[in-house]
Formats: sequence, C-alpha cells, structure tokens
Amino acid sequence: MKQELTIVKVGGKIVEEPASLQQLLAGFLKIKGHKLLVHGGGRSATAIAARLGIESRMVDGRRITDEAMLEVVTMVYGGLVNKQIVAALQALGLNAMGLTGADLNYMVSEKRPVGAVDYGFVGDVKLVNAGILADLVARGVVPVLAPLTHDGKGTLLNTNADTIAAEAAKALAAHFSVTLQYCFEKKGVLRNENDDESVIGNLTPRLFDDYVAKGIIRGGMIPKLENAFDALQDGVTKVVITRADLVGSTEGTTIELV
Amino acid sequence: MKQELTIVKVGGKIVEEPASLQQLLAGFLKIKGHKLLVHGGGRSATAIAARLGIESRMVDGRRITDEAMLEVVTMVYGGLVNKQIVAALQALGLNAMGLTGADLNYMVSEKRPVGAVDYGFVGDVKLVNAGILADLVARGVVPVLAPLTHDGKGTLLNTNADTIAAEAAKALAAHFSVTLQYCFEKKGVLRNENDDESVIGNLTPRLFDDYVAKGIIRGGMIPKLENAFDALQDGVTKVVITRADLVGSTEGTTIELV
Repeated sequence: MKQELTIVKVGGKIVEEPASLQQLLAGFLKIKGHKLLVHGGGRSATAIAARLGIESRMVDGRRITDEAMLEVVTMVYGGLVNKQIVAALQALGLNAMGLTGADLNYMVSEKRPVGAVDYGFVGDVKLVNAGILADLVARGVVPVLAPLTHDGKGTLLNTNADTIAAEAAKALAAHFSVTLQYCFEKKGVLRNENDDESVIGNLTPRLFDDYVAKGIIRGGMIPKLENAFDALQDGVTKVVITRADLVGSTEGTTIELV
Repeated sequence: MKQELTIVKVGGKIVEEPASLQQLLAGFLKIKGHKLLVHGGGRSATAIAARLGIESRMVDGRRITDEAMLEVVTMVYGGLVNKQIVAALQALGLNAMGLTGADLNYMVSEKRPVGAVDYGFVGDVKLVNAGILADLVARGVVPVLAPLTHDGKGTLLNTNADTIAAEAAKALAAHFSVTLQYCFEKKGVLRNENDDESVIGNLTPRLFDDYVAKGIIRGGMIPKLENAFDALQDGVTKVVITRADLVGSTEGTTIELV
C-alpha cells in the first residue's frame, strides 16, 4: 500500500504575512504522513516590483511577465517567500527544501505561445520528473515549491501555483496516495454563497453535475472543481478545498471520484 | 576509495554577468567526477538594494545586514542569482539543485555576536548536515549553494561564500575525496605581484612558510591560504586557487599538505 502524501497549496496572501503564515504552518505541522507545500507570492511580487519602479500588469487575474518582472518573481518567489517558509518549517522541525522547477529539473514547461494576450515569460507545464522528489519525500523531506518552472534551455518561467500543485500531485500519485488540498478564502465549497457555514462536505462527479444543474455551484468555482476532477482522473486520491486556518483539521469540501 | 568531488567557489562578479557566467559554467562542465558550485552575489545585492532605496554599508569589505538588507540578500542570493545558475546548469545537462543553509537544514549558523561592529543578520557556521547532500551528489545532483545559512529558529543569515565553500568541503570530505577550488581575479598565487604569469604551481605548509618569511606571499593572501591549510587539516584533499575562466583546466596554484 502506498504511503500518504498531502500536498497543500496556499496563496500568497497567507504566506506573505508572518501571523497567517505561522498559523498555516502550525496546521500544516499537524498533517499526518508525508507533506509538501506549494506557495504563491503575487502580492509580494507586486509590492517589490512597485518599489523597483516596475508596473504589474494583469489580464484576467494573470500576471504579464516581461523580462523585468521575471527577475522580480525569480527573486520574490524563488528567494524571499520560498526561503522564509523553508526557514520557518525548519524551526518547526520539518526538514523542508525549497525548489523551483529548475531545481532537480523536476518541472519543465514551455513558454506560453503568444495568442490574444502575450503573457511573456509564463510557462505551461510539459513534464514532471517526480523521481528524486519522491525519494526525498520518502526520506522525510518536505518540498516547498515556488511558482516557477524552467524550459530546460536556461530560462525560468512564471507558472501558476494551482497548476504546479496539480501537476506535482498527479506525478507524485505514481509513488504515494496523494491528497491535494487547496486553501482558499472560504471554509469550502458553499451551498449558499451568503452563508459561510453552508459547506458542502463531499463532492463526487454526480453530485457536482447536480449542483451545477441547480445553479448552486457556478462561476469561477466550476473550472476549479473541473481541475480537481481531472487530478482525480490522473491518480490523485482526493482533493480538499478548505480555508488556510483549517489546514490540518477535517473541515472543508472533500472531492473524490466515488 | 572515495569518489572525487570538486567544489568550486565563484564570486558574484563572475556569476552576475551572462558572458562570464556562461564561460565559468562551460569550464565547470569539463570538471570530471562530482561537482558542487558555491556562489556570491554581492554586486547584484548592492544594485537591487540601491534600486529599493536601501543603502549598502560595508565594514572591512563585509556587508552590514540589517533587516531590510536581509530581505534583499534572501531575494538576490537565494532567488535571482541562485536560480539563474541552476537553470543555466540544467540547460548544460547538469542536474543542479539550489540550496541555502535552511534547505535540508544542511548548514546551521549562529547570528554573529555584536562586537566592535554590529554586522546584523550575519551567521557564523556551527553545524553542517552533509548526509542528504552527499547522497544527492552521489546520485549525480550538482548542488548550487547560495551564501545564506539559517539559525534553526526561523531566521536566515547572510554568510560569506568562501566560508560556505570551506565548511561544505570539510563536511563532505567524510564522503568524498574533495578538491576545493577558489576562483579569484589572478591565475593563482603569484611569485611576483606585478607579473600575472608568475604563478606558484604548488604550495605545501613548508613552502608557504618559506614564501611568507621571504615576503613573497603577504597581505590578504596569508589568511586565505591559512584557511586553505585548515580545510586540508580537516580532510579536504586539495585546494586550488585559480581564475574563473581557468576552471576545468589544470592551471592555478594547488595547495596540499605534502
């Protein structure tokens, strides 16, 4: 039987403030079995870019990454945010190791083709080399993944942290029974968007279709959940959507195939 | 018999400019056996700090690292410089992995006590956990070490790259036959400081004492070489001092105990 691995993805907002970071890490520490953390860092990148006189341009919530911005995200995601989390986890007794996709060549991507929008140095994931990463996890190492990949030709590429989490989860599912946990601002998927306590405890494809048909699940939550089902189809055991302060608890929405 | 490991230390100047970095890496690629790279990054840190409106203060060539400067060096050493080198090495087919001392908890330091000078967040190395690092090297991974350590309590500390190279070399000497190669602006230790071709090919403690007594070796080169002999006393096989563009060649000054 495969050992358990929980992959937690947290956005920048949580990990960029010392108080919420400490709370998140305390919850993360409680998770049993092997663990891996994927982080964002967009707010810090925007703040540092502004101090450097570089304007942040976003299209549909996605950052346009020109050469100057690539330097900023390389510094902020790969350095500042990643290393502060690694040092904080080490202080809690977890043997953390920070990585971008270039480190150990674990995630290779391709610069996104210019379409209606030129996103610049943004990578679409092509290949995940999970072997060494899996061995390190099996030895008790806690990988901390920054939202950066590389093209294998010397260029780092900015890559969405949700995507990194899903791709790492799918590749590591060959080695572990993987739970993929997305942290988000609500306790889970809500039955009633005006009632933060109306968390849907479990979702299967049948229940999901049902909720969508009834208009209970809608908008941006639909692609998020479709991605969750894709990850399950690709071998991930379950996906959990919860609030960052509930990481390590049993609260949230659990998504499984059956 | 132990496998060979060559540890190359290069200053910021070399790795911060694309042309000299590519030349250095091409030489690095030629080195036979296992390899590890330690880099600086002070010029980039000073440049980014200036753009952020943070003044760089140095005492005896050592950077004063207050909280704002610690953020800068974390970004620049751990992110910008480290990840660009890692991506460049991957493009050359070497399976590089970037680390600070916090990653894998491989190098733990203590904040330097305030003496005549308060250096701020600067670490003096206390402990090197070379085990996992040695296993990765044995598997063909090329560690790329940034000049940052941590105190094990959640704080990163700025640490001299020469010191990181020497401490890593000594700890890894338990696992490998280690050659420690310092890159520097001259071809090696010179017999005549006005003649760049007057390289002393070999140094032993006896020859060193002799050159010092005759005033041929003097100034800042004396502590540098004393550190080299210390590393040899602690198990490092040999120390080489050479110019960055000669990495991978047989030129330079080789320092051995006998």
